[in-house]
Amino acid sequence: MIKARVTVTLKNGVLDPQGKAIEHALTGLGFDGVGQVRQGKVFDLELEGADKAKAEADLKAMCDKLLANTVIENYAVEIA
Amino acid sequence: MIKARVTVTLKNGVLDPQGKAIEHALTGLGFDGVGQVRQGKVFDLELEGADKAKAEADLKAMCDKLLANTVIENYAVEIA
Repeated sequence: MIKARVTVTLKNGVLDPQGKAIEHALTGLGFDGVGQVRQGKVFDLELEGADKAKAEADLKAMCDKLLANTVIENYAVEIA
Repeated sequence: MIKARVTVTLKNGVLDPQGKAIEHALTGLGFDGVGQVRQGKVFDLELEGADKAKAEADLKAMCDKLLANTVIENYAVEIA
């Protein structure tokens, strides 16, 4: 079994109102010096088999088809 | 300026209906051998200053107070 982590983040320049809200909330809680905050998603997946190259290709296809919106998001695949 | 990434994931044993839905969707799209899928959140933060120890302490406090629900979630702090 292969364990993988996929991280999906917004591309630079794409507005992130959720991140902005967190930024303001942190400042409001008294944390000084908080700059830009951006929120993304992480997926932890388990895949059957032991072929890491196939797993990586599959994971990239999963990102393109379902996990990420490649118009506005980047993704990174990490295999443990 | 310090760049940091905070990853928040559900603790083991906590039900993740969103992850389950993704699991079914991936299987429905024709991806074989997809086991458990769990979804989490990732925050990319910029902090002023250069004191990494202080930044790490601040980030842990931010997680405890705002970014994570420590009853059901774990967090990991990574400083770039």
